[in-house]
Amino acid sequence: MGIDRITTAYYRLPLEPSGDAGHGLLDLEELVTVAIHADGLVGHGYAYTIGRGGRAIRALVEHDLQPLLVRQSAEDVEGLWRRMWRGLLYVGRGGLAAFAIAAVDIALWDLRGLREERPLWAVAGGTARSIPAYGSGVDLPKPLDGLLRQVEGFLERGYRAVKVKIGKPDPSEDVARVEAVRRLVGDGVDLMVDANMAWTVDEALARGRGLVPFNPFWLEEPTVPEDVEGHARLARELPMPIAIGESLHAQAEFERYVAARAAGIVQIDPVTNGGITPSLRVLRLADAAGLPTSSHYTDELSAHLLCTSKNPIYLEKHAFALDAYLERPQVVTDGTVRPTDEPGTGMRFDTAALRPYQGE
Amino acid sequence: MGIDRITTAYYRLPLEPSGDAGHGLLDLEELVTVAIHADGLVGHGYAYTIGRGGRAIRALVEHDLQPLLVRQSAEDVEGLWRRMWRGLLYVGRGGLAAFAIAAVDIALWDLRGLREERPLWAVAGGTARSIPAYGSGVDLPKPLDGLLRQVEGFLERGYRAVKVKIGKPDPSEDVARVEAVRRLVGDGVDLMVDANMAWTVDEALARGRGLVPFNPFWLEEPTVPEDVEGHARLARELPMPIAIGESLHAQAEFERYVAARAAGIVQIDPVTNGGITPSLRVLRLADAAGLPTSSHYTDELSAHLLCTSKNPIYLEKHAFALDAYLERPQVVTDGTVRPTDEPGTGMRFDTAALRPYQGE
Repeated sequence: MGIDRITTAYYRLPLEPSGDAGHGLLDLEELVTVAIHADGLVGHGYAYTIGRGGRAIRALVEHDLQPLLVRQSAEDVEGLWRRMWRGLLYVGRGGLAAFAIAAVDIALWDLRGLREERPLWAVAGGTARSIPAYGSGVDLPKPLDGLLRQVEGFLERGYRAVKVKIGKPDPSEDVARVEAVRRLVGDGVDLMVDANMAWTVDEALARGRGLVPFNPFWLEEPTVPEDVEGHARLARELPMPIAIGESLHAQAEFERYVAARAAGIVQIDPVTNGGITPSLRVLRLADAAGLPTSSHYTDELSAHLLCTSKNPIYLEKHAFALDAYLERPQVVTDGTVRPTDEPGTGMRFDTAALRPYQGE
Repeated sequence: MGIDRITTAYYRLPLEPSGDAGHGLLDLEELVTVAIHADGLVGHGYAYTIGRGGRAIRALVEHDLQPLLVRQSAEDVEGLWRRMWRGLLYVGRGGLAAFAIAAVDIALWDLRGLREERPLWAVAGGTARSIPAYGSGVDLPKPLDGLLRQVEGFLERGYRAVKVKIGKPDPSEDVARVEAVRRLVGDGVDLMVDANMAWTVDEALARGRGLVPFNPFWLEEPTVPEDVEGHARLARELPMPIAIGESLHAQAEFERYVAARAAGIVQIDPVTNGGITPSLRVLRLADAAGLPTSSHYTDELSAHLLCTSKNPIYLEKHAFALDAYLERPQVVTDGTVRPTDEPGTGMRFDTAALRPYQGE
């Protein structure tokens, strides 16, 4: 009994060319899917990248994690997470190893839900609720009219909150774009801005102050994640909250941010954060610190996980939607999402839709 | 012109079963070799692991780094390092990506030396010198008599400094082993101890105090690398210097340690630190802080790099010697090593010796 075998697949999904200030132009998403066969059930997990590292993630799962897992009981999910973390310690402690551990951990949580015949939000200790969602663009290269059309699309689909990328080389261009979006959406819609780590702390201070007239709901990733003290200074000196999370690959990194009061909003991403197991701990950390929570990408998983949070203010509906590759895409109702009540994650990839994009 | 192509190979090298308190039993080293063909020359680099992650490192080099490098000029090594770091940003910023960037960066430095017909120590800005080396065991599982025989072997080979692993579950066993080694080597030999991150800070304080009578030259990796403040407390409260470096995968991590006065000795490892380029910056950081420097593994490369340091107190001669797989193994003379004067790193793998261990 226990874990019988693990299978993986690797896909290269084309993206409509888009981009942000930290990662440049983006036109490819990599998807690594993981299926864990245990006790007659199959749990499904995945990791994604924004174009590089996917094959390395698959190699870690196939060659390095699988031998640590086969014949182990699938039930002690937290114990298996520690086993994987320790097993990859020398090349791990965050970084790319977190993505591989995450893909397996997500499949193990799915399996736990299947075994208990309960949805993920329930096995994770939450209460199902509808969570406000925001429309999120990866739109830095878009000309202004394209940006505004995208934001109009978000409003038409019922979102009452939108996010735009900032970090154009010329600060006045950021100001003009954010001003135009604010004018378009009016004062009743929350408007987030995201710099994707592009600035020094001094630049972020100046840039952030320049955006105050347009009342950003949060400023996301103003500078490099390594500079926790820099984020703390920005949190003290700027009026809008600082949001972070997608670039943190270990619980210890979140702990530093919370201890330094360097984040006003904690965003989980169960793929980049190293799995559902650490993401849930991060949500508890935010609860204990009285911080509101949100999510990055991972729309379907985060809808479950944010149901365990005391104050989940917004779920991100990301531009790189996986809807075309899912058997049952997530439903948005009046700008909110509610996790599925199916057992496990409820997330099943449509292998026929993915097949044309399968990579070696 | 510029970089023409990159080839890689992957080997699984058996180790005499050994181990430490952080990584457990070790019986396999993975070796990923990288050859960069540019301008009619071939530069050689490598990365290693202690058993897991090697195939992922090779996948990063082949699939993700190679497209960023081909047709670029090989001359701007620092610029290519930044290009790789930025290219892997989303899955990188340290972690396993650092090992892959390192393998390429080492080959680029080798290529620079070949192009300039100068040894690495010279192109890196150093002055050739003999550096004291210490015999280093990965010997936690060894019974006491085996440990003592190993240390005797170090002395017979001319080393005037030795390192032993500590972190046995029972603290009194550590004390007995370190006491026996000190009695064996006498007061004229420096004796380092290495806990491989095994303890909490409180444990490390108590354990460290228990070893004071045996005058350890340094205490290495007493607790988890994430806990910089914990290391700073140990540095304040224990009489022996704290040594760190092998588990840090980004320059920013070293900067935190130095800023917090959390390390008394800075150890470079040009593989795990992300390449020669960041290791040289770390040595400058140590120089500016007045800290002595040392190395972890990477004996052949570090002999060059420590020649750029103001105060290179010891080079580690590691138990996992690659000598059997090198065309010209490093020579130890009276317990010291001197970098080669051949162009580049002077490090050439013996492919015939490696062939039996080639992996898929």
